[in-house]
Amino acid sequence: MLGRLNHVAIAVPDLEVAAERYRAVLGATVTEPQALPDHGVTVVFVEVANTKTELLEPLGEASPIAAFLEKNPAGGIHHMCYEVEDIIEARDALQVNGVRVLGDGEPKTGAHGKPVLFLHPKDFDGTLIELEQV
Amino acid sequence: MLGRLNHVAIAVPDLEVAAERYRAVLGATVTEPQALPDHGVTVVFVEVANTKTELLEPLGEASPIAAFLEKNPAGGIHHMCYEVEDIIEARDALQVNGVRVLGDGEPKTGAHGKPVLFLHPKDFDGTLIELEQV
Repeated sequence: MLGRLNHVAIAVPDLEVAAERYRAVLGATVTEPQALPDHGVTVVFVEVANTKTELLEPLGEASPIAAFLEKNPAGGIHHMCYEVEDIIEARDALQVNGVRVLGDGEPKTGAHGKPVLFLHPKDFDGTLIELEQV
Repeated sequence: MLGRLNHVAIAVPDLEVAAERYRAVLGATVTEPQALPDHGVTVVFVEVANTKTELLEPLGEASPIAAFLEKNPAGGIHHMCYEVEDIIEARDALQVNGVRVLGDGEPKTGAHGKPVLFLHPKDFDGTLIELEQV
């Protein structure tokens, strides 16, 4: 079921500072900030050879990463996203195995314009897993 | 400086349970447990197409992940490891930029038999970054 690791997402308190640190100190290619008001985040992508690291800053009042940053004011790794071929098939197979899908269980359109779902971190050793259909 | 994302490491309270969940529920290829007494962990690798996820369970009295699991009893994402070509050159460039290298600053032999260093999470938005020379 699991395809490529699409990205690892890190919630950061200050996107500009974080992006510049990856660019200047780690010598990485970092994209320009992209505001995604529908998702409550502003994002940059740190492009590495085989995948990407996403840096996320809260945007707006109801950002899904606001609570995480309240608990982790310095920031931290927020989730990992794996690709799947068919998100409905993946969801159904997971639910049969007792995995809890967050929200109403219906895929949403993710930050990359593709259908995504999130799995309950309690079902995967405290790791929030996003599945993205590619 | 940053090469491939070599792996993402997740500390888990029960390696057997976690490995079986990735295998049976997520349909992933998971290697057999490997005890690394010098590193204080037992590890399995979840092989995905472009990288790997490492699941780590404490081994022995002075495991480097014991404190993390005390704080996060359900487990959680522990660190990300990026590859670098020359770890001494990378370290020196990072230190010039004020990045704190953990320990005495000298590379150790990592779990894959290659030289590794860890960077202070406070310098990277709460993310523990491992560098591995490949």
